[in-house]
This record gives sequence, C-alpha cells and structure tokens, in this order.
Amino acid sequence: MILDRIKKPNDIKKILPDEYALLAQEIRTFLIKKISENGGHLGSNLGTVELTMALHLSLSLPEDKIVFDVGHQSYTHKILTGRWKEFDTLRKYGGLAGFPKRDESPCDCFDTGHSSTSISAGLGMVKARDLQHKKYTVVSVIGDGALTGGMAYEALNNASKLESNFIIILNDNERSISENVGGISKYLQSIRTAEGYQDFKINLQKQLQRTPFGNEVVTKLKRYKSSIKQLFVPGMFFEDMGITYLGPVDGHDIRAVRKLIMEAKKINHAVLIHVKTKKGRGYAPAERHPARFHGTEPFDIETGLPKKNKKKAGWTDIFSTVMIKLAARDEGITAITAAMPDGTGLNRFRNLYPDRFFDVGIAEEHAVTFAAGLAVGGMKPVFAVYSSFLQRAYDQVIHDVCIQNLHVVFAIDRAGLVGADGETHQGIFDLSYLSSVPNMSVMAPKNKWELADMLKFAIMEYDKPIAVRYGRGEAYDGLEDFRAPIEYGKAEVIYDEGGVWLFAVGSMVQTAEKVREQLKAKGVKCSIVNARFVKPIDEEALKAASENASLIVTMEENVLSGAYGEKARAYLDSIGSEVKVLNIGIPDEYIEHGNVDILKKAIGIDSDSIRARILDVLNG
Amino acid sequence: MILDRIKKPNDIKKILPDEYALLAQEIRTFLIKKISENGGHLGSNLGTVELTMALHLSLSLPEDKIVFDVGHQSYTHKILTGRWKEFDTLRKYGGLAGFPKRDESPCDCFDTGHSSTSISAGLGMVKARDLQHKKYTVVSVIGDGALTGGMAYEALNNASKLESNFIIILNDNERSISENVGGISKYLQSIRTAEGYQDFKINLQKQLQRTPFGNEVVTKLKRYKSSIKQLFVPGMFFEDMGITYLGPVDGHDIRAVRKLIMEAKKINHAVLIHVKTKKGRGYAPAERHPARFHGTEPFDIETGLPKKNKKKAGWTDIFSTVMIKLAARDEGITAITAAMPDGTGLNRFRNLYPDRFFDVGIAEEHAVTFAAGLAVGGMKPVFAVYSSFLQRAYDQVIHDVCIQNLHVVFAIDRAGLVGADGETHQGIFDLSYLSSVPNMSVMAPKNKWELADMLKFAIMEYDKPIAVRYGRGEAYDGLEDFRAPIEYGKAEVIYDEGGVWLFAVGSMVQTAEKVREQLKAKGVKCSIVNARFVKPIDEEALKAASENASLIVTMEENVLSGAYGEKARAYLDSIGSEVKVLNIGIPDEYIEHGNVDILKKAIGIDSDSIRARILDVLNG
Repeated sequence: MILDRIKKPNDIKKILPDEYALLAQEIRTFLIKKISENGGHLGSNLGTVELTMALHLSLSLPEDKIVFDVGHQSYTHKILTGRWKEFDTLRKYGGLAGFPKRDESPCDCFDTGHSSTSISAGLGMVKARDLQHKKYTVVSVIGDGALTGGMAYEALNNASKLESNFIIILNDNERSISENVGGISKYLQSIRTAEGYQDFKINLQKQLQRTPFGNEVVTKLKRYKSSIKQLFVPGMFFEDMGITYLGPVDGHDIRAVRKLIMEAKKINHAVLIHVKTKKGRGYAPAERHPARFHGTEPFDIETGLPKKNKKKAGWTDIFSTVMIKLAARDEGITAITAAMPDGTGLNRFRNLYPDRFFDVGIAEEHAVTFAAGLAVGGMKPVFAVYSSFLQRAYDQVIHDVCIQNLHVVFAIDRAGLVGADGETHQGIFDLSYLSSVPNMSVMAPKNKWELADMLKFAIMEYDKPIAVRYGRGEAYDGLEDFRAPIEYGKAEVIYDEGGVWLFAVGSMVQTAEKVREQLKAKGVKCSIVNARFVKPIDEEALKAASENASLIVTMEENVLSGAYGEKARAYLDSIGSEVKVLNIGIPDEYIEHGNVDILKKAIGIDSDSIRARILDVLNG
Repeated sequence: MILDRIKKPNDIKKILPDEYALLAQEIRTFLIKKISENGGHLGSNLGTVELTMALHLSLSLPEDKIVFDVGHQSYTHKILTGRWKEFDTLRKYGGLAGFPKRDESPCDCFDTGHSSTSISAGLGMVKARDLQHKKYTVVSVIGDGALTGGMAYEALNNASKLESNFIIILNDNERSISENVGGISKYLQSIRTAEGYQDFKINLQKQLQRTPFGNEVVTKLKRYKSSIKQLFVPGMFFEDMGITYLGPVDGHDIRAVRKLIMEAKKINHAVLIHVKTKKGRGYAPAERHPARFHGTEPFDIETGLPKKNKKKAGWTDIFSTVMIKLAARDEGITAITAAMPDGTGLNRFRNLYPDRFFDVGIAEEHAVTFAAGLAVGGMKPVFAVYSSFLQRAYDQVIHDVCIQNLHVVFAIDRAGLVGADGETHQGIFDLSYLSSVPNMSVMAPKNKWELADMLKFAIMEYDKPIAVRYGRGEAYDGLEDFRAPIEYGKAEVIYDEGGVWLFAVGSMVQTAEKVREQLKAKGVKCSIVNARFVKPIDEEALKAASENASLIVTMEENVLSGAYGEKARAYLDSIGSEVKVLNIGIPDEYIEHGNVDILKKAIGIDSDSIRARILDVLNG
C-alpha cells in the first residue's frame, strides 16, 4: 500500500505524482471501511480527499496552518499526518477525535466542531504571524453551508482589509452558493490565476472609451447591470468585499487545486479559492444519500444499509410526530431549523407544511430573532435546535424573545451528553444559560410520552418563552403509567417512600430508577421526583420532601453551575431546612468524545457511582 | 408650533407638504433642547428626522410596522406618534424609554437595543403577515454600522428568498458601506425606480449578441469584470443576494425618500432602499464630533460642551491607561473592540499601537474567535466589550476560547446596572454565563487600583481564559489602603470583626461599606470580604468566615441564578455549615431604564434595603 509510506506529516511529498490517484483511492477505501465499522462522518470526508492531499502537498506542516471549519472533514488530514493506524479508535473514549484537536497533533492548529469559525480563527493567526514577522501560510477551509453563518461574514468583512496573505478555501459541494456560478467559470479560472492578474484591474471605462463603440456600450450596460453580473462575475460576492476570488476548480483534480493554491500563496491579501467537490465521492450510496451519510452509524458496505436494525423511537422521532399532529390542529404553528431538518426531525413537518417550515441555514442568531418576529406577528414558532448550537443565540434569547416575553418554543435536542462528537457537541450548558434568563421557562421530560405532553403544553397551552430539552438517541419508554397532566412549575412524584429523595431532571429519571433499585437492595428507602420544570423549580415539592428525607439528591445531565441542583439547594437552605443535599451533574470541565455510558461512569453520573456517593454521604 | 398638531399617530398626514421643512426644523430644535437638558442619543436622531417623517407619511401606524435596528434613533418616531409631550421623562425611571418599547405604544412593534436584529425580526413579521393573508407593510430600518453584524447578513440571506414585499431601509450615515457607491448612483436611481423596473431584467448576452459588436464586447467584458462591477453596480452587494436595491437617495429630502418608499411598496420581494443621512445633521457640534454626540450627557447648546465638569476617573479610563502602559512593556498585547473604541477606552491604545489594535465592527462573535486565533498564534489578546454585548459571543467563549484553554482576556465594561439605556443594556448576566464555562476565571475589582492590578494579573501573570468585569461610570476610589497583591482564586478580607460577614463582588464592596456603617450604628458587628474572584470562588475564605459568622451575606450586581451567591451558599451547605446565608443580587426580571441609584432602591440592592433585609434575618 502507498498509505504504508505515510508515517508522519509531509510524507505525502515523497509520493510520486503518478501515485496520487492510487493514494486517493486507498484513502477512500480506508475511510469507507473504517467508518462502516465504527460510524463517523463519511460524505464530507470522501468529498475532500484530493483537496486535503493538495493542501498537504502545497504546505509544510505543522509550520503552515490549516483551519478546518466544523472539522468533521479532517479525516484525510489525520490520515496524512500519520494517524491512520489509530483509526480504529476514532470517536471512541480515549481514542482519536472526530474533529481537529490541538492536544492530538501539532498539525491540528485549531479545535473546531461548530460551524463558521474558521475564517475568524485563521485571520487571528494571520495577524499574529504578521506582528511577529513570521512567514507561515494560513489556510481556512470552509464549506458553502458554513458560509450561511453570520460570523463567517463578519470574518470575511474583516479579512478584506488584510495586506498580507490569507487563503480561504471554499469547499463547495454543490449546495447554496454554487448555483450562482455560471458556465464561464473555466475561462475566468484561466485569466484569474495568471501571474499578472493584478494588472487586469484597470479602469474599464477608460478602456471602453478608447474603442469606437465605447460610450454606447457604457450606456447600454448601465441598463442591464443585473444581467451583466450573472454573466461575468461568479465570485463577485467575495470580490465585493475586497477578497480575491480564484476558481471555481474541480476539487477532485489534485493538480488543478495545487496550481490555485500556489497562485494564491503569491497574493498579498485575502484570497478565496472556490473548490467544487462532491459529497460522498467514490461511494455510490453516499453520493445518492448525502444527508444519511453525513454522519452515519456503522453500515454494510455492499448495500449501504445500517448494520443495526431500526431501534426504538428516538426523542427526535417523538418530537417529529408531535409537531405534525399539532400542526394539523393549529395553523399558527410554524417550525424553524438552522440547517438541520433531518437531525431535528422537522423533515416530516417540512413535507406536510412547507409554507410554515423555515430552514434558515446555519444561522441560529437569525433563527431566534426571526422566531420573535413570527411571534409578534401572531404565529406560534417552534425552533428545533441542538443544545450546543443554541449557545450561539444566547443573546437573542435574552434580548429578542424574553424581554418581550414572546411565545417562542425552544425544542432543544441533543441535550446532555451526546457521545462520539465530543466536547464541542455535548449539550451540557442549556439548563444554566436558560435558567439565568428572566421570563424563560425550562422543562425536561422523563420519557417519550412526557416529551409529547410537554410539547403540547408548551405549544398549545402556555403563551410565553419556554424550552423543552431532551437527549440524543432512544427515548425512554419506561414509567408509562406516570402521565399526570403537565402543570406549570410542578414536579411529579413517582415514588413517595421517604428516605433518600432523588430529584431527577429528564434523562436522569431513568438513572434514578436504577439507583433506587440498588439502594433498596441495600435496605435504603428511596423516593423519586421527576423535576419536570428546571425553571421555575417546584419549591413545594422540595419542601415537602425535605420533611421526611434522610438526604435529597439532585440529578441532571448538565454542568452544576447555575442549573437545577444549585437552585434546589439554595431554596432548601434559604428556608432553613437542615436536610443534606447532594448535587449530581456534569463537573466543571469539558467532556471528551466516547460512548455515553463510559463517559457517565468516568465523570461519576452513572447509577453505580451515584449509589456509591449516596451511601458515602449517608454513612459519612 | 406645527408640532402642537401632532397629537397621535398619523397626524403628520394632516400637515401640508409646504410645512414639512418647518416641522423638521421644530423637531430638531426640540431634540437638541431636550437632549441638552437630559442627555440621550443625539447624533443618530438628528440624522433621521426626515427619514422618519417620510416613513410616517408613507405608512399607516400601528397597522404597518417599523422595526428600528438598535433603536436609539427612534426619537422622531416617538415624537410623531404623539409622545413628544412626555419627552422630559425620557430615559428616566418610569418615563419614556430611549429605545422602542412595545409596552409604551402599539406603534413600537419590536423592542430593540442591541444591533443587527431588525431584518430578522422584520422578516418574521412578514412571514406571519403572509401566512395570515394580511396586507400590512413591514419596514426594517438598519444603519450601515449594524450591517457589519453577522446576523444581519444571515437575515438578508433569508430575505432574498421572499416572494412578497419587505422593505429594508439602509440608513447610511457615510461610514463603512457608502464608500463603495460611485458617481453613477443618480442615474441608477432614476432607472431603478421606474414603474417597469422588472422588465429590464432580461438576458444581456442575448441582447448584446443581436448587436453588430456583440461577441467582441462579451469577450472584452469578461476580462474586466472587476472594473465593470465598480462602474455599474453600486448595490450589487444586495442584488447579489437577490434583494432589489433602490438608491442611494438623500435622506434629508423627504419627497425623494417618500418616492422610493412608494416604489418599494410595489415590489413583491425584499427591497433595500439606500438612504444617505448625516449624523448630527443641523447641529454643528454634533456634525463635527459624531462620536461624542452619539450618546451624550446634558450639554450646553451654545458651546456643545458637557454641563458637568469632568468627573473622577471612570472604570473605562483606568482600563484605558493600564492598556497603554502594559502594551509599552509587552509587544504581545493586542486589543480588540467590536465598534466601541471610544466607549471601551481603547482609542488611546489605537492611537499609540495601531498595528496591535483591531476594531472588527459590530461583530462580537468574530471578535472572540479572532482573539482565539491571535492567542493560538502567540499573542495576548484583550477583548474590551460591554457585558450585555458579550452575550452575543457566549458560544465562541465556550467553543473557541475555553475548550482550548487559550489566554484571551475579557475586559468586561458596563457590567452591572447601566441606568438610562435600560433592559437591553443592563450587564447583569455575565457572572452567570461565564461561571458556567469550564476553564474560565472571572474577577471583579472593588476600586480603581484593584482594576489596574487585576488587569495586570490577567494579562501579564495568568495564561488561560480570564475575565475582569467592571461597571459604568466613575471608578470607586475609596479603600485605597487595601491593595494586597492579586492571588489566583483568593478573596481579600477587608474588615475581620465577626458578626455579619458581607461577601461583596466588585462594585458591591462600596455598598458593603455603607451597610457596615449602618449595621454598626445599630450595634451589629460586621465584617467585609472583597470576593475578587467569582470563579473560582474562595472556599477557604467562606469557610473561615462561617466559623464566627452570625450571617453570611453575598452581594453582587448580577442576576442571582448561577452567580456568586448561589455558589457560595452551595459550598457552605455542602460542607455542612449551619450558618445562615442571604443572597443579594438582581432578581429574576428585566430591569428597566432609570437612574442607577433609583433602580437599586427599587430592586432592593441599595445599602438601606440590604441593611433592612439583614436585620430582618437577624431578628427573625
């Protein structure tokens, strides 16, 4: 295998050009095999094999810097820096991360995970480089989807002022932006990358006026500016901001991409190379189903079908079903996603109610304020969003929704530990950042029926800002007999037997049941309360429990700071209760990638650890 | 006065066109007089008198909707809706707000205060209108500065898909965007607003190829696309996104602006009217010093000079001085502002170290990730930002700075209650949202010397993410003898006399002194600890105090949820301390505008209220 010769960064430069195609093929086969076995991001990585090879051939790592936006497309980069032998550990606890990690390699210059950060980070490095009179090259690689995020534009707006080199690679896998690019791209590519490119920038009017028909053309053109634009200026969007545009180029043609990168390195300001790639390239099922193979579970290579059978309904499935049911009854319900119609389960809503469905792109800030506008206009907007991505819109929640006390519903998916995606994607802050906001209410369901009930309550019965947060994966289907109606601010007592009272939030109710079984086996009495509301907390339930409790334990899949447990404890302390309180939650640290059960054990929020901690307190 | 005839919305329509100029003059005189007496936003309001008149003449309020971006330019709107008689109460407790407020008038359709939200909110209203088959007009009025914020771009990107009317008014007071607009604007204005405008959009290539010189021109033009662009397409930035561009138009010409608004109302998609205005128009000192008269204290109309003499040094002044001193010693120090070089005090740094100074525009998200890039590149970035604006970059703090544990310093100005700007600008969440973030540390200084010491510690001695938060206005210059060196995570004991222990954060140390005097006068012993660090809290100091305390009182100018007090209480409770704890802080509600002392009294965090609450606990 040629891949055997890639042992460390820059080894690709020892590969003969004739062998590039074969190496690309080997990398593809490798990626498909490994991801089919372990899961991971497939489509984006198959699409960037040649682009990454061209970058590694043109740059010298780790001196030069490549910032991968989002970062799920960095697998080939990891392979080419010698990490391919560790790929069986990818996204597993203690193993390779699915995103760039500075801790993992000096060739990973900036950690990513969320979208649209790469140009800002790259520009910071460029400024640091220039201030220190260093010479390395900085390249930010950003997808066309990530360009819908406002901060990428903020960064481009700033990059335009640069007077030194900064290369931005637009990895365009034929979605939003590519449509604007017409058929003259090939011609433009040849003139725009010529050595003397800058010289072409002379005043057209002067030129035209020297020709016999000059003034006539000028007049004519003025009338048709819109058409001119579409004909001649594929990269004008960027040029308009003062950023040189090169391309578009076939991203699967290593030679052509390298040529543009070498040209781009000569330019003494910001330059954007428009690279056209195909998601899933080289693996037919992934080319046909880009959404399914964006991030995939293990699959059968032959058929492309998932290895495991369809599991039980997930939290997302429940949300998806409830939304279409409620929307049928209430024409005011509108649904918003920030580029995640499949991930959030809104795809069915979109198909049934396209007019009331809004995919705003990767634009969480806009999404929240847009929702506020819909609410002011008399609609009932539901923004379905992953917990870690709603962090992007914290100010808009405070400033646009909650000051005006508007009825916007936040359906917060992927809350709690999400597993293989790691630090950037763990949804462990939402209970804190939402609890601090006046007028906001926050719920978390114990099981799938309660998710349905809470959504119904939030959308149909309540009329102010409210969030329902639920986890990734299978929805709990136990405790089906506990379905008391949702009452605002009220917890649900599940077992009232005195002893140790477990006040559990959402997903932790299931854990609380296990803890209770274990405690009972040790002869310790145990009661369980399903908190239901994290804001406002049910003070009455806490007070009542405190009166016959040996210990009150709060349990939540969130950082402790500012979340349920601290508030429950503060309330009990403030009323002079002398009951002992134990707060179980995520410690004040970032939680890496890995199987969720392993992670919970590692940080002490699995049932065994919690039982042990409870017994310590009782005995201590 | 003509103004006397403006008693309610739409009364301006009864004014004769011949009287418009006089009315504009009356409004200007009124604004200058009122703001010179009470303070407020002057420049932006003087710049939009005619624009607002034109809007009110062209629309029917409150059925039609005007969303003012930021909203500090809404004074003329308030005047024209009949609120001018209440102007003496402007920005005072219980009086008119300095920003649009739905609670204040049905003509204020959306609350604003922060930048770049108006297009998102307006688009939401447009969609709500269309889904309900209503007919009103929605207009978002956004400044060129606000367009540097990414979420405005996210919104434009979404507005481009509209198939119904939505008017965006770009209020361009000759800063960032206007430079791109060349001399053919007048010509374009005339053709772009003609009735049959849409018909012009025909395929140019076809047209040209019918002419004798067609192909030759096409070939020639292809070579000079960049120049074509500059010559013919002033609004191409917007057209590129699918938004019709009208203008530019003189924003002080009511007739011309009205004409464009009426044209714009006919277009069945998003349309942007580019209005050129002059900040401070009609008042020479404000025209000459736009930054000083953006938001101003009371001033002398004749001279334009502030009525009060220069007060004691403010927190911002101290920051300003420390930055230039440290920068002289350390070339690694870089400073970042999001469009607030004056407000944050970085103007002196900018003048002395222009290469190391970055004004990124109203782009807090970019600012934080850019800072992360600078830190990765080996610099020491300091991001000076108002507390309420850093809310915009909460995710970037979590995701780009703190996961990588980078040495980025956050100099958080305007923390705590800010007064006249009201709900949107109160800096009362930062202690909570920063405390929830792993790897972050948070400090707050008691007085001006300590601010200097903390900045020095944060920038020169510490090497991980850290924030220093300080208030608006005069820096406290008491307790000058208390200047023990900053030690990481350590509080400072100021009075150790047992009794009631006041643990005060930052600005509340000054209040604690007053409380102590009052308690002593009642014969109650009182000790004071300056918390210094809100994260991590000094557990030792709390434990030590708890051993001889009759009561521990935490005091902070921040919401209680997730801030210092909850954590101090949780710690004491967790170690089994039986000391009573009283948490003083901002209640879980938005705090309106008004004098800070009045606000503190109203919410019970002034010294009298705190003393009373302490005595209640002690006696009860």
